[in-house]
Amino acid sequence: MRMSELAAASEVPVATIKYYLRERLLPEGRRTSATQAVYTDDHLARLGVIRALLAAGVSIARARDVIAALDSPPSGPYDLLGVAHSAVAPEGRPVGDPTEARRLYERLGGAADECEPGLLAGLAQSLDTLKQAGFTVPPEVLETYVTAARRIAEAEIDGIPTGSPESAVEYVVLGTVLTEPLILALRRAAQQVVSAERFTGDDAGRSGAEA
Amino acid sequence: MRMSELAAASEVPVATIKYYLRERLLPEGRRTSATQAVYTDDHLARLGVIRALLAAGVSIARARDVIAALDSPPSGPYDLLGVAHSAVAPEGRPVGDPTEARRLYERLGGAADECEPGLLAGLAQSLDTLKQAGFTVPPEVLETYVTAARRIAEAEIDGIPTGSPESAVEYVVLGTVLTEPLILALRRAAQQVVSAERFTGDDAGRSGAEA
Repeated sequence: MRMSELAAASEVPVATIKYYLRERLLPEGRRTSATQAVYTDDHLARLGVIRALLAAGVSIARARDVIAALDSPPSGPYDLLGVAHSAVAPEGRPVGDPTEARRLYERLGGAADECEPGLLAGLAQSLDTLKQAGFTVPPEVLETYVTAARRIAEAEIDGIPTGSPESAVEYVVLGTVLTEPLILALRRAAQQVVSAERFTGDDAGRSGAEA
Repeated sequence: MRMSELAAASEVPVATIKYYLRERLLPEGRRTSATQAVYTDDHLARLGVIRALLAAGVSIARARDVIAALDSPPSGPYDLLGVAHSAVAPEGRPVGDPTEARRLYERLGGAADECEPGLLAGLAQSLDTLKQAGFTVPPEVLETYVTAARRIAEAEIDGIPTGSPESAVEYVVLGTVLTEPLILALRRAAQQVVSAERFTGDDAGRSGAEA
């Protein structure tokens, strides 16, 4: 199909497609003349992936890394996870003391010395944000986070498709990056559900404030 | 303390403090002359909260809402959650078909008709992102997300401090907003831990790719 048809099929404006081409997020089409090229269903599928990554808050530069991984798959699950994790890793200053982050990693069942520095930095940074605000996660809640993270990871890793390297790459890389908004949205919705169960028609016990 | 001392104690530059004052994130100090004001430990604590919110990716406008909630607490857990949820709600176009989002809400144990429109939109948007990318979460993994979200919410809601309205507000609003990076960081770390357990020294079973 021609670029105008690709734009119509994908609902992505021509100008945006040209931008993705310049940024090397989308591979060039096959040239049919000096000014024309044709595109395939692979381009259409790739546009869907690009839009989803950007919608999930991944930067252009990181989206390019993710897409490079889809095009030339790294060799093992570790490297795949590495690409996925670096796409979503927080950007920002490294944080000083990793002691508590190391402890959390051990509670997940890992050996802190073997933890990727970037992952440890991400954990440390998230803990530092809480500390800055003077906010302490109650121990039972933190324990629940650790257990839930471990269960989620088990289900995800066990679900890696074994059919082809391509499908494994797509599953690990996109599955890690793109499901973060879903997990957070589910947690917010669950908070409302549980809050309704606990408090419906009875806010009086809390503070005496008017309804 | 004077502004220079507040800057030293908080490690926030004077220019940044002035910006927070202009943006009404930080309340004015008590004026001692036309050009001078004094600040208290409350200002210092508030600076920690502001930095943590911005570090967690909350916008200035939404940080202002969160802080307004801390200053004049809404009356019940529902309203508290509302403030927290709107601070972290995705910005973007509303998504068409909420059918699957409604179904997920019901699986969490809620009645979809009673779900906040914003929460439902957030769920629908996160599902739409996956759909755009042509990515399907395997049913067992989705089931694990739902169960984990529900467990996390139960621990969180049960942990709401009952001592004072102020502590409840701080817990719900900051606990919801600021712990998102921690939950995601724990999940990434857990993926690495579980991946190491499953694949260490044995990538061969996957694809025959070289190590």
